[in-house]
Amino acid sequence: MSDSDPSFNLSCPFPIEDYPQVIMAHGGGGKLTHDLIQKMFLSAFGNSIANQQLDGAVFEAPGQTLVMSTDSHVISPLFFPGGDIGSLAVYGTTNDVAMCGARPLYLSIAFILEEGFSMKSLWKITQSIKAAADHTGVKIVTGDTKVVDRGKGDGIYINTTGFGHRETSLDISPKSIREGDAVIISGDIGRHGIAVMASREGLEFATDLISDCGPLSPIVENLLASDINIHCMRDLTRGGLATAILEICDQSSIEVILEEKNIPITGAVQGACEILGLDPHYVANEGCFAAFLPTDQVEKALEVIRAFSQGKKAAVIGRVESAGQSGLSMLTKIGTHRIVTMLSGEQLPRIC
Amino acid sequence: MSDSDPSFNLSCPFPIEDYPQVIMAHGGGGKLTHDLIQKMFLSAFGNSIANQQLDGAVFEAPGQTLVMSTDSHVISPLFFPGGDIGSLAVYGTTNDVAMCGARPLYLSIAFILEEGFSMKSLWKITQSIKAAADHTGVKIVTGDTKVVDRGKGDGIYINTTGFGHRETSLDISPKSIREGDAVIISGDIGRHGIAVMASREGLEFATDLISDCGPLSPIVENLLASDINIHCMRDLTRGGLATAILEICDQSSIEVILEEKNIPITGAVQGACEILGLDPHYVANEGCFAAFLPTDQVEKALEVIRAFSQGKKAAVIGRVESAGQSGLSMLTKIGTHRIVTMLSGEQLPRIC
Repeated sequence: MSDSDPSFNLSCPFPIEDYPQVIMAHGGGGKLTHDLIQKMFLSAFGNSIANQQLDGAVFEAPGQTLVMSTDSHVISPLFFPGGDIGSLAVYGTTNDVAMCGARPLYLSIAFILEEGFSMKSLWKITQSIKAAADHTGVKIVTGDTKVVDRGKGDGIYINTTGFGHRETSLDISPKSIREGDAVIISGDIGRHGIAVMASREGLEFATDLISDCGPLSPIVENLLASDINIHCMRDLTRGGLATAILEICDQSSIEVILEEKNIPITGAVQGACEILGLDPHYVANEGCFAAFLPTDQVEKALEVIRAFSQGKKAAVIGRVESAGQSGLSMLTKIGTHRIVTMLSGEQLPRIC
Repeated sequence: MSDSDPSFNLSCPFPIEDYPQVIMAHGGGGKLTHDLIQKMFLSAFGNSIANQQLDGAVFEAPGQTLVMSTDSHVISPLFFPGGDIGSLAVYGTTNDVAMCGARPLYLSIAFILEEGFSMKSLWKITQSIKAAADHTGVKIVTGDTKVVDRGKGDGIYINTTGFGHRETSLDISPKSIREGDAVIISGDIGRHGIAVMASREGLEFATDLISDCGPLSPIVENLLASDINIHCMRDLTRGGLATAILEICDQSSIEVILEEKNIPITGAVQGACEILGLDPHYVANEGCFAAFLPTDQVEKALEVIRAFSQGKKAAVIGRVESAGQSGLSMLTKIGTHRIVTMLSGEQLPRIC
């Protein structure tokens, strides 16, 4: 979807024709800020909590264990195959809440807009946020809008902070991982990073690559409802599969061995990575997670995940070899062992 | 406080000498991001919830009515008399939580750093965040770090999202305001906006002006503990006193009359506004709020507020003339009535 996408519904209660671009006064707190919030954001996101327009959102908590997660989104380009900064901002944060075993309930949205940013793009992003929030079942309950001078931003940055309720009594965290646990993955890796890079650089060989940007909370909800004894989960965003598993190894002092041949990856992503000299195990995903669980729970877990369209390629990719010392290695396709370490940065910046 | 302030304690577990400036890899999710989070942010903010380093913060809710508020901070300059972007980011959001009648408990911090930003400044801001969080009694439980390319940011932007617990059974919101209510203010107006502007423009006549940037939650807590029947509160940030009261009039369909002579304002702020051609009623504050309450509660409320150093100038500044129609007017010092309306933007941009 781009700014010129003819299928995009432009009917917006905010007068885009009068203000085709963001101006400083849209962030000044006066009438123009008020109009932008009322006619663009609240017209899209409005609900009984947000509509109160207090300094914060006031709501009743449905239970006692709560989860809070925050993420700022600075992706370039803003629109990419399979999503845009709006859907990314919703899924990125609600997926993090889900990874803690909680159902995402409430979301705050804070925009930093650059003077001159296209109002039409802002409305498209707003609609995309709304669609993603509806899909995830999360309510947008409070927000903020700031405008920075031309040349002091990059179009739009979006922070979302999500808040959810954890009903399970499982302690889903690295310290719950046990020796012998299986490591499973919910889908094929590398699509988000490669799709964004192809879109950024205009790579023609990769035009059919679509980001996996999407919601993980419905999958997690079904796993928990099926009484799968999940020890730990993590979504494979910035830094990809390798970085996520390394972080968990580091936090829980476990040694993990992954089997390269079992890690699902499409031919298109594999090919693009080879041409670009990237290792797909470090490339970002936005709708894929790894989970640690007892081996006797694996079949049932895979069945639950595969019932979702984005989970068809779910697979067992490794095991926890020993507890007590930290490390990650990979049994390669040619049968050798390779030590996996953390990159100093990421192969692709500005990916989320 | 500036970057060259000799009183600033530079001992930082993060190796600033190796990385004097932010580089893209600090936002890439790999080893350098990990080091920055561990050695700078967690070394300053660490607590049992944040130290778990899950995708989100998991905590028990102490009660049933919760408040959530978000604010991105894009102030220029980053350091100003009386505060910096770090203290502002903590007080800005915790004050909003307090305005809903809740005690701020948890905070998320999300940094957007520009490639090349000074690590020394980042450490100073980190320490300032820590001090402000301690002062407010709020825990920083989760966070995010992104880096954008040089020229695509403005040094540092900080989003904070706060989460608090409301114990009072009062419904503190515009709809609770009644005809005859008094409007009180917690301190003198305009200091934050003028201090920031003076600092930004190097105005020599205003060098002794200090921002009021500070915590309001202790005052609110004492007001509620003293059984003051607060109908509505709002802090007077972006857009100042006039905009805040206008928003409340609009949300509750009430007519408010303010008495100009009763609105506390220092000679220094008044003088600076006259020279600069600004109306102080629209200038931003960061440690000052207005409250609506029954007239028979006013004396007790003022007594509570005046017990705080920043509340010495608390005063009654107006009354709710009639309910059912929206409007704000001011009885001027020369005895005339003036209709107060919302400015289209703000007089000073990038103030918070």
